[in-house]
Amino acid sequence: MYVGSVVIDCNDFSTMLAFWQEALGYVPKYPPKENDWALLIDPRGGHVNVSLQRVPEKRIGKNRLHLDLYAEDPDAEVDRLLKLGAKRFDRVPEPGEDFVVLEDPEGNLFCVVDLGESADSEAAT
Amino acid sequence: MYVGSVVIDCNDFSTMLAFWQEALGYVPKYPPKENDWALLIDPRGGHVNVSLQRVPEKRIGKNRLHLDLYAEDPDAEVDRLLKLGAKRFDRVPEPGEDFVVLEDPEGNLFCVVDLGESADSEAAT
Repeated sequence: MYVGSVVIDCNDFSTMLAFWQEALGYVPKYPPKENDWALLIDPRGGHVNVSLQRVPEKRIGKNRLHLDLYAEDPDAEVDRLLKLGAKRFDRVPEPGEDFVVLEDPEGNLFCVVDLGESADSEAAT
Repeated sequence: MYVGSVVIDCNDFSTMLAFWQEALGYVPKYPPKENDWALLIDPRGGHVNVSLQRVPEKRIGKNRLHLDLYAEDPDAEVDRLLKLGAKRFDRVPEPGEDFVVLEDPEGNLFCVVDLGESADSEAAT
Protein backbone atom coordinates (compact mmCIF):
# COMPACT_ATOMS: atom_id res chain seq x y z
CA MET A 1 0.00 0.00 0.00
CA TYR A 2 1.24 3.46 -0.81
CA VAL A 3 0.14 7.06 -1.19
CA GLY A 4 -1.16 6.88 -4.72
CA SER A 5 -2.90 10.21 -5.05
CA VAL A 6 -3.71 13.43 -3.28
CA VAL A 7 -7.32 14.37 -3.91
CA ILE A 8 -8.28 18.04 -3.93
CA ASP A 9 -11.92 19.03 -3.50
CA CYS A 10 -12.94 21.98 -5.63
CA ASN A 11 -15.91 24.04 -6.75
CA ASP A 12 -14.64 25.51 -10.02
CA PHE A 13 -13.48 22.26 -11.54
CA SER A 14 -12.17 23.54 -14.87
CA THR A 15 -10.15 26.38 -13.31
CA MET A 16 -8.61 24.11 -10.72
CA LEU A 17 -7.92 21.39 -13.28
CA ALA A 18 -6.14 23.84 -15.57
CA PHE A 19 -4.14 25.34 -12.72
CA TRP A 20 -2.87 22.12 -11.17
CA GLN A 21 -2.19 20.52 -14.53
CA GLU A 22 0.03 23.44 -15.56
CA ALA A 23 1.52 23.95 -12.11
CA LEU A 24 2.78 20.38 -11.88
CA GLY A 25 3.25 19.59 -15.57
CA TYR A 26 0.83 16.70 -15.11
CA VAL A 27 -1.59 15.26 -17.66
CA PRO A 28 -5.03 13.71 -17.22
CA LYS A 29 -4.86 9.93 -17.28
CA TYR A 30 -8.13 9.93 -19.28
CA PRO A 31 -10.59 12.62 -20.32
CA PRO A 32 -12.18 14.02 -17.15
CA LYS A 33 -15.61 12.55 -16.54
CA GLU A 34 -18.55 14.94 -16.44
CA ASN A 35 -16.32 17.70 -15.14
CA ASP A 36 -16.40 16.35 -11.66
CA TRP A 37 -13.41 13.99 -11.41
CA ALA A 38 -9.97 13.98 -12.94
CA LEU A 39 -6.87 11.96 -12.24
CA LEU A 40 -3.69 13.84 -13.07
CA ILE A 41 -0.51 11.85 -13.48
CA ASP A 42 3.13 12.76 -13.82
CA PRO A 43 4.09 12.02 -17.44
CA ARG A 44 7.74 11.69 -16.36
CA GLY A 45 6.62 9.03 -13.89
CA GLY A 46 7.63 8.62 -10.33
CA HIS A 47 5.63 11.25 -8.50
CA VAL A 48 2.33 11.00 -6.71
CA ASN A 49 -0.91 11.47 -8.66
CA VAL A 50 -3.14 14.44 -7.97
CA SER A 51 -6.90 14.02 -8.32
CA LEU A 52 -9.50 16.75 -8.52
CA GLN A 53 -13.08 16.20 -7.49
CA ARG A 54 -15.88 18.68 -7.74
CA VAL A 55 -17.88 19.10 -4.55
CA PRO A 56 -20.87 21.32 -3.79
CA GLU A 57 -19.66 22.71 -0.49
CA LYS A 58 -17.17 25.53 0.00
CA ARG A 59 -13.96 25.10 1.93
CA ILE A 60 -14.22 26.28 5.52
CA GLY A 61 -11.07 27.72 7.04
CA LYS A 62 -7.54 26.66 6.19
CA ASN A 63 -7.06 23.36 4.39
CA ARG A 64 -5.92 20.75 6.89
CA LEU A 65 -3.61 19.01 4.44
CA HIS A 66 -1.40 20.85 2.01
CA LEU A 67 1.16 20.15 -0.68
CA ASP A 68 4.83 20.99 -0.33
CA LEU A 69 6.25 21.43 -3.80
CA TYR A 70 10.01 20.90 -3.85
CA ALA A 71 11.77 23.22 -6.29
CA GLU A 72 15.34 23.56 -7.46
CA ASP A 73 14.66 27.15 -8.51
CA PRO A 74 11.89 28.36 -6.21
CA ASP A 75 11.94 32.01 -7.29
CA ALA A 76 11.31 31.07 -10.89
CA GLU A 77 8.65 28.57 -9.89
CA VAL A 78 6.85 31.07 -7.68
CA ASP A 79 6.80 33.59 -10.54
CA ARG A 80 5.46 30.94 -12.88
CA LEU A 81 2.77 29.85 -10.44
CA LEU A 82 1.65 33.44 -9.83
CA LYS A 83 1.17 33.85 -13.58
CA LEU A 84 -0.90 30.67 -13.64
CA GLY A 85 -3.32 32.02 -11.05
CA ALA A 86 -1.73 31.40 -7.66
CA LYS A 87 -1.56 34.19 -5.10
CA ARG A 88 0.92 34.94 -2.38
CA PHE A 89 -0.46 34.13 1.05
CA ASP A 90 -0.36 37.19 3.25
CA ARG A 91 2.09 36.39 6.01
CA VAL A 92 5.43 37.64 7.27
CA PRO A 93 8.11 34.99 6.70
CA GLU A 94 10.38 34.14 9.58
CA PRO A 95 14.13 34.61 9.06
CA GLY A 96 15.78 31.73 7.27
CA GLU A 97 12.60 30.14 5.98
CA ASP A 98 13.21 28.01 2.93
CA PHE A 99 9.62 28.08 1.68
CA VAL A 100 7.03 30.43 0.24
CA VAL A 101 3.32 30.02 0.95
CA LEU A 102 0.95 30.42 -1.97
CA GLU A 103 -2.77 29.95 -2.52
CA ASP A 104 -4.25 28.05 -5.44
CA PRO A 105 -7.20 29.61 -7.34
CA GLU A 106 -9.62 28.45 -4.64
CA GLY A 107 -7.51 29.63 -1.73
CA ASN A 108 -5.98 26.31 -0.74
CA LEU A 109 -2.56 26.97 0.73
CA PHE A 110 0.50 25.19 -0.59
CA CYS A 111 4.24 25.74 -0.22
CA VAL A 112 7.11 26.02 -2.65
CA VAL A 113 10.12 24.66 -0.79
CA ASP A 114 13.66 25.52 -1.79
CA LEU A 115 15.24 22.18 -2.51
CA GLY A 116 18.50 23.75 -3.61
CA GLU A 117 19.09 25.49 -0.33
CA SER A 118 17.81 22.64 1.74
CA ALA A 119 19.25 19.68 -0.10
CA ASP A 120 20.71 18.41 3.16
CA SER A 121 18.00 19.70 5.43
CA GLU A 122 14.41 18.96 6.25
CA ALA A 123 12.69 19.07 2.93
CA ALA A 124 14.94 16.89 0.86
CA THR A 125 14.03 13.29 0.35
CA MET B 1 9.49 21.00 -9.24
CA TYR B 2 7.46 18.14 -7.90
CA VAL B 3 5.08 17.16 -5.11
CA GLY B 4 7.64 16.43 -2.42
CA SER B 5 5.43 16.07 0.61
CA VAL B 6 1.88 16.14 1.85
CA VAL B 7 1.69 18.08 5.11
CA ILE B 8 -0.98 17.16 7.63
CA ASP B 9 -1.93 19.64 10.34
CA CYS B 10 -2.64 18.01 13.66
CA ASN B 11 -3.34 18.72 17.31
CA ASP B 12 -2.27 15.47 18.98
CA PHE B 13 1.12 15.28 17.35
CA SER B 14 2.38 12.05 18.90
CA THR B 15 -0.79 10.10 18.17
CA MET B 16 -0.90 11.28 14.58
CA LEU B 17 2.81 10.66 14.11
CA ALA B 18 2.51 7.10 15.38
CA PHE B 19 -0.56 6.41 13.27
CA TRP B 20 0.75 7.68 9.94
CA GLN B 21 4.17 6.17 10.48
CA GLU B 22 2.65 2.73 11.01
CA ALA B 23 -0.07 3.15 8.42
CA LEU B 24 2.38 3.91 5.63
CA GLY B 25 5.44 2.05 6.90
CA TYR B 26 7.33 5.33 6.81
CA VAL B 27 10.16 6.47 9.07
CA PRO B 28 11.09 9.92 10.35
CA LYS B 29 13.93 11.44 8.34
CA TYR B 30 15.33 12.83 11.60
CA PRO B 31 14.11 12.94 15.21
CA PRO B 32 10.97 15.11 15.28
CA LYS B 33 11.72 18.61 16.51
CA GLU B 34 9.97 19.78 19.66
CA ASN B 35 7.01 17.57 18.88
CA ASP B 36 5.64 19.99 16.37
CA TRP B 37 7.14 18.95 13.02
CA ALA B 38 8.11 15.61 11.52
CA LEU B 39 9.06 14.58 8.03
CA LEU B 40 8.17 10.97 7.30
CA ILE B 41 9.83 9.28 4.36
CA ASP B 42 9.31 6.03 2.55
CA PRO B 43 12.27 3.80 3.47
CA ARG B 44 11.70 1.82 0.29
CA GLY B 45 12.02 5.06 -1.65
CA GLY B 46 9.91 6.31 -4.46
CA HIS B 47 6.79 7.55 -2.74
CA VAL B 48 5.84 11.01 -1.61
CA ASN B 49 6.88 12.21 1.84
CA VAL B 50 4.27 12.90 4.50
CA SER B 51 4.90 15.68 7.01
CA LEU B 52 3.10 16.31 10.26
CA GLN B 53 2.89 19.72 11.83
CA ARG B 54 1.27 20.57 15.12
CA VAL B 55 -1.14 23.48 14.94
CA PRO B 56 -3.22 25.09 17.69
CA GLU B 57 -6.51 25.27 15.79
CA LYS B 58 -8.96 22.44 15.31
CA ARG B 59 -10.00 21.23 11.89
CA ILE B 60 -13.29 22.73 10.74
CA GLY B 61 -15.45 20.55 8.52
CA LYS B 62 -14.18 17.97 6.08
CA ASN B 63 -10.54 18.15 5.05
CA ARG B 64 -10.33 19.73 1.61
CA LEU B 65 -7.44 17.54 0.48
CA HIS B 66 -7.22 13.86 1.24
CA LEU B 67 -4.96 10.91 0.60
CA ASP B 68 -5.89 8.02 -1.64
CA LEU B 69 -3.91 4.99 -0.51
CA TYR B 70 -3.58 2.42 -3.29
CA ALA B 71 -3.68 -1.13 -1.98
CA GLU B 72 -3.22 -4.51 -3.59
CA ASP B 73 -5.16 -6.13 -0.73
CA PRO B 74 -7.54 -3.44 0.50
CA ASP B 75 -9.52 -5.65 2.90
CA ALA B 76 -6.37 -6.62 4.78
CA GLU B 77 -5.13 -3.03 4.77
CA VAL B 78 -8.43 -1.68 6.08
CA ASP B 79 -8.37 -4.21 8.92
CA ARG B 80 -4.80 -3.25 9.73
CA LEU B 81 -5.60 0.47 9.68
CA LEU B 82 -8.63 0.01 11.94
CA LYS B 83 -6.41 -1.71 14.48
CA LEU B 84 -3.97 1.20 14.29
CA GLY B 85 -6.65 3.70 15.22
CA ALA B 86 -8.50 4.52 12.01
CA LYS B 87 -12.29 4.46 11.95
CA ARG B 88 -14.74 3.69 9.20
CA PHE B 89 -16.40 6.83 7.89
CA ASP B 90 -20.16 6.53 8.19
CA ARG B 91 -21.48 6.48 4.64
CA VAL B 92 -23.33 4.11 2.36
CA PRO B 93 -21.06 3.00 -0.48
CA GLU B 94 -22.42 3.16 -3.99
CA PRO B 95 -22.51 -0.07 -6.01
CA GLY B 96 -19.21 -0.93 -7.63
CA GLU B 97 -17.09 1.45 -5.60
CA ASP B 98 -13.47 0.40 -5.46
CA PHE B 99 -12.59 2.36 -2.33
CA VAL B 100 -13.30 2.50 1.38
CA VAL B 101 -13.40 5.79 3.29
CA LEU B 102 -11.67 5.87 6.67
CA GLU B 103 -10.85 8.55 9.22
CA ASP B 104 -7.46 9.01 10.82
CA PRO B 105 -7.26 9.53 14.62
CA GLU B 106 -8.18 13.20 14.21
CA GLY B 107 -11.06 12.60 11.82
CA ASN B 108 -9.29 13.44 8.58
CA LEU B 109 -10.85 11.37 5.83
CA PHE B 110 -8.72 9.22 3.56
CA CYS B 111 -9.45 6.40 1.12
CA VAL B 112 -8.11 2.92 0.63
CA VAL B 113 -8.41 2.24 -3.09
CA ASP B 114 -8.46 -1.26 -4.49
CA LEU B 115 -5.56 -1.29 -6.89
CA GLY B 116 -6.05 -4.95 -7.71
CA GLU B 117 -9.58 -4.50 -8.97
CA SER B 118 -8.86 -1.23 -10.68
CA ALA B 119 -5.48 -1.94 -12.19
CA ASP B 120 -6.78 -0.78 -15.55
CA SER B 121 -9.17 1.80 -14.27
CA GLU B 122 -9.09 5.18 -12.66
CA ALA B 123 -6.87 4.71 -9.67
CA ALA B 124 -3.92 2.98 -11.23
CA THR B 125 -0.89 5.01 -12.10
